[in-house]
Amino acid sequence: MIHRGIRRCFSTPSLRSIVNHPGESAYLSSRSADYEALKVDVHEGIASISLNRPDKMNALSVPMWYELIDAFKSASRDSDVRVCVLKGEGSHFSSGMDLTVFSEMRAIADEELCPGRKREKVKSSIDFFQASVSSPEECTKPVLCLLHGAVIGGAVDLATACDVRYVHNDALLSVKEIDLAIVADVGTMQRLPHIVGDQRSRELTYTGRTFTGKEAVDYGLALEGFDTFEELEDHVMGVAGVISTKSPLTVRGVKKVAIYTRDHGTEDALQHVAMHNTAHLFSEDLDRAMEGMMKKEEPVFRGN
Amino acid sequence: MIHRGIRRCFSTPSLRSIVNHPGESAYLSSRSADYEALKVDVHEGIASISLNRPDKMNALSVPMWYELIDAFKSASRDSDVRVCVLKGEGSHFSSGMDLTVFSEMRAIADEELCPGRKREKVKSSIDFFQASVSSPEECTKPVLCLLHGAVIGGAVDLATACDVRYVHNDALLSVKEIDLAIVADVGTMQRLPHIVGDQRSRELTYTGRTFTGKEAVDYGLALEGFDTFEELEDHVMGVAGVISTKSPLTVRGVKKVAIYTRDHGTEDALQHVAMHNTAHLFSEDLDRAMEGMMKKEEPVFRGN
Amino acid sequence: MIHRGIRRCFSTPSLRSIVNHPGESAYLSSRSADYEALKVDVHEGIASISLNRPDKMNALSVPMWYELIDAFKSASRDSDVRVCVLKGEGSHFSSGMDLTVFSEMRAIADEELCPGRKREKVKSSIDFFQASVSSPEECTKPVLCLLHGAVIGGAVDLATACDVRYVHNDALLSVKEIDLAIVADVGTMQRLPHIVGDQRSRELTYTGRTFTGKEAVDYGLALEGFDTFEELEDHVMGVAGVISTKSPLTVRGVKKVAIYTRDHGTEDALQHVAMHNTAHLFSEDLDRAMEGMMKKEEPVFRGN
Amino acid sequence: MIHRGIRRCFSTPSLRSIVNHPGESAYLSSRSADYEALKVDVHEGIASISLNRPDKMNALSVPMWYELIDAFKSASRDSDVRVCVLKGEGSHFSSGMDLTVFSEMRAIADEELCPGRKREKVKSSIDFFQASVSSPEECTKPVLCLLHGAVIGGAVDLATACDVRYVHNDALLSVKEIDLAIVADVGTMQRLPHIVGDQRSRELTYTGRTFTGKEAVDYGLALEGFDTFEELEDHVMGVAGVISTKSPLTVRGVKKVAIYTRDHGTEDALQHVAMHNTAHLFSEDLDRAMEGMMKKEEPVFRGN
Amino acid sequence: MIHRGIRRCFSTPSLRSIVNHPGESAYLSSRSADYEALKVDVHEGIASISLNRPDKMNALSVPMWYELIDAFKSASRDSDVRVCVLKGEGSHFSSGMDLTVFSEMRAIADEELCPGRKREKVKSSIDFFQASVSSPEECTKPVLCLLHGAVIGGAVDLATACDVRYVHNDALLSVKEIDLAIVADVGTMQRLPHIVGDQRSRELTYTGRTFTGKEAVDYGLALEGFDTFEELEDHVMGVAGVISTKSPLTVRGVKKVAIYTRDHGTEDALQHVAMHNTAHLFSEDLDRAMEGMMKKEEPVFRGN
Amino acid sequence: MIHRGIRRCFSTPSLRSIVNHPGESAYLSSRSADYEALKVDVHEGIASISLNRPDKMNALSVPMWYELIDAFKSASRDSDVRVCVLKGEGSHFSSGMDLTVFSEMRAIADEELCPGRKREKVKSSIDFFQASVSSPEECTKPVLCLLHGAVIGGAVDLATACDVRYVHNDALLSVKEIDLAIVADVGTMQRLPHIVGDQRSRELTYTGRTFTGKEAVDYGLALEGFDTFEELEDHVMGVAGVISTKSPLTVRGVKKVAIYTRDHGTEDALQHVAMHNTAHLFSEDLDRAMEGMMKKEEPVFRGN
Repeated sequence: MIHRGIRRCFSTPSLRSIVNHPGESAYLSSRSADYEALKVDVHEGIASISLNRPDKMNALSVPMWYELIDAFKSASRDSDVRVCVLKGEGSHFSSGMDLTVFSEMRAIADEELCPGRKREKVKSSIDFFQASVSSPEECTKPVLCLLHGAVIGGAVDLATACDVRYVHNDALLSVKEIDLAIVADVGTMQRLPHIVGDQRSRELTYTGRTFTGKEAVDYGLALEGFDTFEELEDHVMGVAGVISTKSPLTVRGVKKVAIYTRDHGTEDALQHVAMHNTAHLFSEDLDRAMEGMMKKEEPVFRGN
Repeated sequence: MIHRGIRRCFSTPSLRSIVNHPGESAYLSSRSADYEALKVDVHEGIASISLNRPDKMNALSVPMWYELIDAFKSASRDSDVRVCVLKGEGSHFSSGMDLTVFSEMRAIADEELCPGRKREKVKSSIDFFQASVSSPEECTKPVLCLLHGAVIGGAVDLATACDVRYVHNDALLSVKEIDLAIVADVGTMQRLPHIVGDQRSRELTYTGRTFTGKEAVDYGLALEGFDTFEELEDHVMGVAGVISTKSPLTVRGVKKVAIYTRDHGTEDALQHVAMHNTAHLFSEDLDRAMEGMMKKEEPVFRGN
Repeated sequence: MIHRGIRRCFSTPSLRSIVNHPGESAYLSSRSADYEALKVDVHEGIASISLNRPDKMNALSVPMWYELIDAFKSASRDSDVRVCVLKGEGSHFSSGMDLTVFSEMRAIADEELCPGRKREKVKSSIDFFQASVSSPEECTKPVLCLLHGAVIGGAVDLATACDVRYVHNDALLSVKEIDLAIVADVGTMQRLPHIVGDQRSRELTYTGRTFTGKEAVDYGLALEGFDTFEELEDHVMGVAGVISTKSPLTVRGVKKVAIYTRDHGTEDALQHVAMHNTAHLFSEDLDRAMEGMMKKEEPVFRGN
Repeated sequence: MIHRGIRRCFSTPSLRSIVNHPGESAYLSSRSADYEALKVDVHEGIASISLNRPDKMNALSVPMWYELIDAFKSASRDSDVRVCVLKGEGSHFSSGMDLTVFSEMRAIADEELCPGRKREKVKSSIDFFQASVSSPEECTKPVLCLLHGAVIGGAVDLATACDVRYVHNDALLSVKEIDLAIVADVGTMQRLPHIVGDQRSRELTYTGRTFTGKEAVDYGLALEGFDTFEELEDHVMGVAGVISTKSPLTVRGVKKVAIYTRDHGTEDALQHVAMHNTAHLFSEDLDRAMEGMMKKEEPVFRGN
Repeated sequence: MIHRGIRRCFSTPSLRSIVNHPGESAYLSSRSADYEALKVDVHEGIASISLNRPDKMNALSVPMWYELIDAFKSASRDSDVRVCVLKGEGSHFSSGMDLTVFSEMRAIADEELCPGRKREKVKSSIDFFQASVSSPEECTKPVLCLLHGAVIGGAVDLATACDVRYVHNDALLSVKEIDLAIVADVGTMQRLPHIVGDQRSRELTYTGRTFTGKEAVDYGLALEGFDTFEELEDHVMGVAGVISTKSPLTVRGVKKVAIYTRDHGTEDALQHVAMHNTAHLFSEDLDRAMEGMMKKEEPVFRGN
Repeated sequence: MIHRGIRRCFSTPSLRSIVNHPGESAYLSSRSADYEALKVDVHEGIASISLNRPDKMNALSVPMWYELIDAFKSASRDSDVRVCVLKGEGSHFSSGMDLTVFSEMRAIADEELCPGRKREKVKSSIDFFQASVSSPEECTKPVLCLLHGAVIGGAVDLATACDVRYVHNDALLSVKEIDLAIVADVGTMQRLPHIVGDQRSRELTYTGRTFTGKEAVDYGLALEGFDTFEELEDHVMGVAGVISTKSPLTVRGVKKVAIYTRDHGTEDALQHVAMHNTAHLFSEDLDRAMEGMMKKEEPVFRGN
């Protein structure tokens, strides 16, 4: 196509390599992880993924949007990872979309004079940002989110795509998009009502007002609030530690089923989990759990 | 048809007039607003729509049901309106369905002897009441609801069709229909679970018990409770004031997207908002917001 | 609102008048039927609704779009009407959208400089055209469609919103929108696949090619084809005559249930029809049918 | 089939007997109620259904799973029952699945060597357990659930299928399945998010951690918590008593509509309740309610 | 409940017996098959189920409705059955609902004076007839339907719930319900559009007109037509014979997946079949098929 | 992750490069097209994609499955491509899944001893094959499919994921999976019913019987049949040529809307196309079409 005539520089992966990367588009080439805008650290089954532009309040730049997709795909693939923690380096989780992204998006659209095709380009941008925001949800492993400092606009979108959120009581959050004259379009409006209910979600989206971490807990947006960052981090790492001892096969299953359930009726959801367990119920881990039960010992599950 | 042979007394509206009335069935003739059972007042972008039969505890009469449809259509159409407040004149929000409506409904049905057609008439009545209760939701602009005094039966249906509810702590609410041997059929049972969760919704519907405004806040039915009517009204008008400064184009978009999201799965909802912004993202208001951002000034958005 | 301060010139309809107009938004004022772009004739229970701009090949103008909505609402309301026939005056069913409508739509949009609000206006136009095309489907009584001569673009949209189509073998049809660089947006793409299957629908939409009435029958788009207009008309009036002798209560029910079924899964659809008959099964017409059965006589059902 | 040639030992039930058992598969033979693992008691319209293996902490055994289906079908059929209370005999609600059930399930599957058919057997088991857990939901009458002591694993699934839950503050609950390396597959994961929101549901499911009755109230899993078992029981029986005075026809309708609503969009749900009342609105109970209203007396509704 | 105090006369089935009856509600007692209104014959893997009231043109009586449920459940359970054939004894498939059923249904409803409860009884009747009509679809094995003579009203409902239909060219069919002033409510309106498209389905339902077997083939309602009953029967038994040689595990899976697909979107359907095969792909039958492939021999699959 | 510590070898693409690749996951690196198992040729806007293992009857091998994904992504991206034609080199379209793929899949699964994780691997394989089969559907440009010779099993799955199919009358087709004891799981069962109706789809899937190209046309599986390969190819290239002259912007829109419509209800589908055109209606191509209309000249649209 574009490059026809040029010699191919990729080799077809074997079915083995495709199959051995469950939980990702297996045909994506794996990549190294020394990112420009993220920091990733894997330790005892926990992948800490940090937004890493502390001098810019971790504003979401194009490389950061891009690397988030890559990092969560890698976490799905990496057999050393059993659970993820998403957080921000420095004093803030994230101040939201880097404003230069808007101007870039605008500039790109303006290169196209046909108003129909211009909007195809706008759609491509939004699709890309949505793909990035959805990447914690697409990750086959649970993602805990640790919120502190500023959590503004796109940062809230990202947080709502995680499994569970914990917060510093003094954090300052805002569904800020209304103030940019933008209908929040990368996930907050779609996921927030499932978390805090329809009413609170609308109020926060219409007013764009700032609220504290403590309020976020009251609203149900975060599960628990802490007065110091240390307590917050200790708690999140503790929860992550607990999850990392569970059967990884089962944890992956729970996540898949939870997301399916959110978006389907009860009957379909019951059928789906029945099918899931029909396939996956019998496992080494079930054997170990049963054995542990008999022996009154904590089972040690397979690492992945 | 009925009137064939009679000269037409209406003129076809132009496409311009149809198109320039977004947010309503454009082919409805506009109407004056001096209502029999409502009071409407528009001030600084805020339309206050009051149930206005204070001597009858604002019981919902046929004219009131009818005028609610008209009033919220007018609010959609009126470029001076950016947000609505729904409330009750006098000491109560509303004591619910005026009992004469039931007897009238009964009498009309009883005029028809064929049991099948009798039920078509019952269906027509219910469709009409549902259309009225849904009118705050159909309104293209946010509707804040101010609850005080009695909020009984059909009044709760109406309140749940608003975007956000605020309450006087001493208000007395009840999903009363069970005591009339009626399955609540104009909206409470459909919207309440999204607001207070499935369990509380069932309890309130099965028992029909009375609860206070304070409890309504605890349950998540109202967002906030106030000890005096003045504080309540001040707060609601304050929130309305805030919303009235936002980009009207964006506010309309937020409402549309919020309602779509409530009734669709996450993937469909994400696609929908992407399409919405593909069309509407670029706007004068976005320009003003960006400009404001640069100049560190509050943007002033277009009035409609 | 717009007219606040002006005295009301409408009076609230009574619940009786609302309820006695099943099958329409009861709060619409009824109107006379001497249309500018349609011809309507009611005879022995059959409403013939004709596109009536024969010198313009019945091109769909704004008044025609507008009057279609009104005509089908009237047919729903009119107790003399038991079935409708939609057809074109003169040599053609319709050549599709009148091109002046596009220019008008363009001009209206261009009056608005804000690109976001401009698109709200485009959306309003499309909503209006969709409402018009959907009006045969919204009509509570079956609509038979009689196709001859040119059946182009928007005319196909309109035809697919009818219950059943019959065609002159020499008619020339085309899903023409592709040649205007328009994704057909008022109904063909949504309804055609249910009628001719997914594959044929795509071929016709991608190529915009012209096909004959005879082919339309082969594809399943029309139910039957005829070599002369007289045979065509006789057949359609014959079918309409048959339907007009059936129980109107039941015919209305069949239409409602058919449309519900098309858009829901089998289980929901079975529940829906069970509920429908739970309410409407017992009727004078059932009694008459049973009586007829006993006496071996054709039952004569109530007129409406 | 299996028994062809053997004389039939059942007689076809009459349509009358089928129809007079609304709310159940009418063709199931009715059965006596002296169960092995349940205790059932009907008093003043309230059926108390107790898990009854107190020496085994009411662990869910095959007979118990089986009898739950039967007991809730009987409650649907029994005209003396207007509301149910589900609870546990002795010090605990239930410790969850009896571990012997897992081994039995395993043994049965292992009798089958074909890996595909083995999984059909696993599916059959899960279908059976799901049918049992769903039986409180299938019951046409409301089921209140009284939680105390241990409420573990399958016991939570069962509780979430009830209409409303009340709890002893010191109860100990856990969505325990993760520790058995099992994705909870009989209802918790499908119903919990509707009750406590998506986030809390995930946390409890991932961690399997134990939480108190008091916390259950904070999370919204139980409606109210009590410090003593007596207060708990008194309150639940009081609520049951209130519901038992309401119109049974209406109470059945409310339950049906509540479940339909949970699993459908708002528009479908509104249509459904409109259809429901079109059929069932007019009733003796409505008459009595209206009469009561006139006379300012509490109406006494028909018993069933 | 009803029978409390009476000693139980059933014994809890073991989990083994529940699990070994895949494809049915395992807790139904199995029953003998010498029916009053059906004839059942199992031969070489094919269960022939015949409507057996030839002197009444196989009109659908209450025992027949009832026994259909039982017969198809037995066919699901019976390991000797791999495919079913549904047909009529004598000269007709079936003349539809026995009119005495209507009068019985009416009489039962009329015993109840409360108009709301009366309609609950109507609903129970419809639910029962729907359950019976759906029983070929619920059967885990394919059902071929052989149509000849009269195929009227309820008989068409029954036929559309089968997997595939074959027809005698001279058969006379009619969606007759309209002539009884009844909206067809037990399945035709829900399943016919998936078979013959939306348009033909509406025409047949509105007009109730009679059409021949040959036309049924043209419309796509039957797959193939035959001039003599012998050819028809030979062909159907031939197809049944072919299906009976396929892997029963796979045939059951195909049926389940086909029904799921009909009622879900493409993406959900693809996920569903992926899950199905994740569980069931590896099987003895796959091994035998592969072995057969290697050896170039027809595989002989396990009997059930 | 896997490679942490290793220096990154990829550079973040710019937003510009992401946005300028509409219709694909923009973050996939583009690749050259000299494939191992496919042949791709782009000429005058038409991409001919040929299965290219003629000596193996174009059996679907892992490289072929893999390269299909890549080829259709490239076609989406390549601005020279306006329409695709999928066909087979040599005498056959394709004999279906290469049997070595099954053994490989088996071997990979067997490396994993845990039965739960083994099934995760099976799921990964199926996900991969489904992604490949769905790639013609995911392609943003129409795909015409040219069928001749053998079209067996997986080849039918692939064909049904194309927009339109044309066939050599002597082609031999079969939904063969049943004979391998496999429930067809990569698309046929999900897409065929939308093309040929529910009944024919089931018959072909249950029996696995071979049918000719001519029959495929009768069933509606292919749109048209031809007696010689030359006629077939000429016709398909002719249709492709026609589509290649249409507005590419509009053609892409038609495809998107057609797929959305197939999987959603009519109301959602109407809203979706309204939103689509709200965004994309105004375009250079619309201007050119209008201009052409005025000047009575064929418009020449932009190339991409």
